Amino acid sequence: MLVDGKPVDSVPATDRGLNYGDGLFETIRLHQGRPCLLERHLHRLRAGCVRLALPYPGDRALRQDIERLVDAQEGDAVLRLVLTRGDGGRGYAPSPNAQGRRIVALHPMPPVGPDALRVGLCTTRLGRNTTLAGLKHLNRLEQVLAAAEVAAAGWDEGLMLDEAGLVIEATRHNVFFLRADRISTPPLTHAGVAGVMRQLVIEAADAMSMGGDEQPLRYDELHEIDSLFLCNAVAGVRCVKRIGSRAYEPGDALERLRSALVERGVTWLA
Amino acid sequence: MLVDGKPVDSVPATDRGLNYGDGLFETIRLHQGRPCLLERHLHRLRAGCVRLALPYPGDRALRQDIERLVDAQEGDAVLRLVLTRGDGGRGYAPSPNAQGRRIVALHPMPPVGPDALRVGLCTTRLGRNTTLAGLKHLNRLEQVLAAAEVAAAGWDEGLMLDEAGLVIEATRHNVFFLRADRISTPPLTHAGVAGVMRQLVIEAADAMSMGGDEQPLRYDELHEIDSLFLCNAVAGVRCVKRIGSRAYEPGDALERLRSALVERGVTWLA
Repeated sequence: MLVDGKPVDSVPATDRGLNYGDGLFETIRLHQGRPCLLERHLHRLRAGCVRLALPYPGDRALRQDIERLVDAQEGDAVLRLVLTRGDGGRGYAPSPNAQGRRIVALHPMPPVGPDALRVGLCTTRLGRNTTLAGLKHLNRLEQVLAAAEVAAAGWDEGLMLDEAGLVIEATRHNVFFLRADRISTPPLTHAGVAGVMRQLVIEAADAMSMGGDEQPLRYDELHEIDSLFLCNAVAGVRCVKRIGSRAYEPGDALERLRSALVERGVTWLA
Repeated sequence: MLVDGKPVDSVPATDRGLNYGDGLFETIRLHQGRPCLLERHLHRLRAGCVRLALPYPGDRALRQDIERLVDAQEGDAVLRLVLTRGDGGRGYAPSPNAQGRRIVALHPMPPVGPDALRVGLCTTRLGRNTTLAGLKHLNRLEQVLAAAEVAAAGWDEGLMLDEAGLVIEATRHNVFFLRADRISTPPLTHAGVAGVMRQLVIEAADAMSMGGDEQPLRYDELHEIDSLFLCNAVAGVRCVKRIGSRAYEPGDALERLRSALVERGVTWLA
């Protein structure tokens, strides 16, 4: 782990990430010692910093940290990048001169689990907030509580609705659904994390003329769709086998999507 | 500052408070070296731990930390208590065996500012989430962004609406309003922090037969009310002088409220 480029494993207790969740993060797949989709992760991080007026440490500093950490790494792993607004006194108002803090940590590759997931519906909802929607920020209590539900129920994953009853995402995946031969994903204008893999799947589905559009999906519409897919930047794309009593068939869409993603450079899905 | 009872000023970068905002906090006024309303703060903290299934370190450990920190303190100051779910690996799901972490820090008393505040309307909204509403949790990006608006505009405080357009609170105060000789406060079932001072004001207004009920308040109803008050556990109760072009008169309600609070033991308001 590196904190502001130094090999330490702690941060000051005055850090605003700790006190207010005032920051952003990225979770990056490392495949055969190389960070996957790094450009896209850095792009999202920069865009998030603009939205939160958070200091961005620059691509160069982040790339150097990553290179140092993955230097001796040959297998698969996960990199976690955290940017916070750095130290601050008591009080919500950020200092206009805030010096941000960056934390880059290497984690073992988690077990990816089955290719077809048993999914439950979480009772924890996602709040609707246009200011924060889409961002991978550090305010993640909703996901923490939903993930606890998933663990308690023994599901592989949990689907999350927003407060309006719309399907938004799963606790650690974005959601795509197949209906009338088109692959769509819920819009994230009011809730949810705009995942790097989600954007790639949108582009791949569009390139195959299979859709890739954003369509709202109510929970009661889940019985009308043909397939449901989950994706993230660590595990790639997988299908949902079952939600409650409703079973889904992936058809050939999953393999076609994966092939399109491999063609677009996501070779570790092959 | 004490972290788990030890005089250190840092936490492991694996702390879930930092990575997910997975925790709660309290802001406690210290008056003449004594923590004010401590029972109520600890009560809220315990209740919040139950709602988040967060480990509670026990009243005794927290009281001991506080006593050590305020030992040599004779004047006014602010204590900040933070409880997090402690260390965790990557991934949202909390460990069922999580050992929490407690951070108790002493801060200088902030300038309390004027007794009648110039308030603006923040464009940052509060998301609506019944699971998290009322809690003083560490997911505070909405307040951070709203507080930045307040600072940029030069207001004393900023009023925050939820995504449904209801007045909920200010960035660091709860809100009370006087209409037809009754003092009411917005319900916090969908958003907002259920403040310790808010609860005291509810009880005081009720005891004076002046109301103390929860009533929704839309932004466009602000011109119909007679007075608007803000309160928190550090500054007590103050009135709003102006929101935009709308001016308010406190009438005698503010003084009556304060007297009732002093009678109920909030002697530092006298």
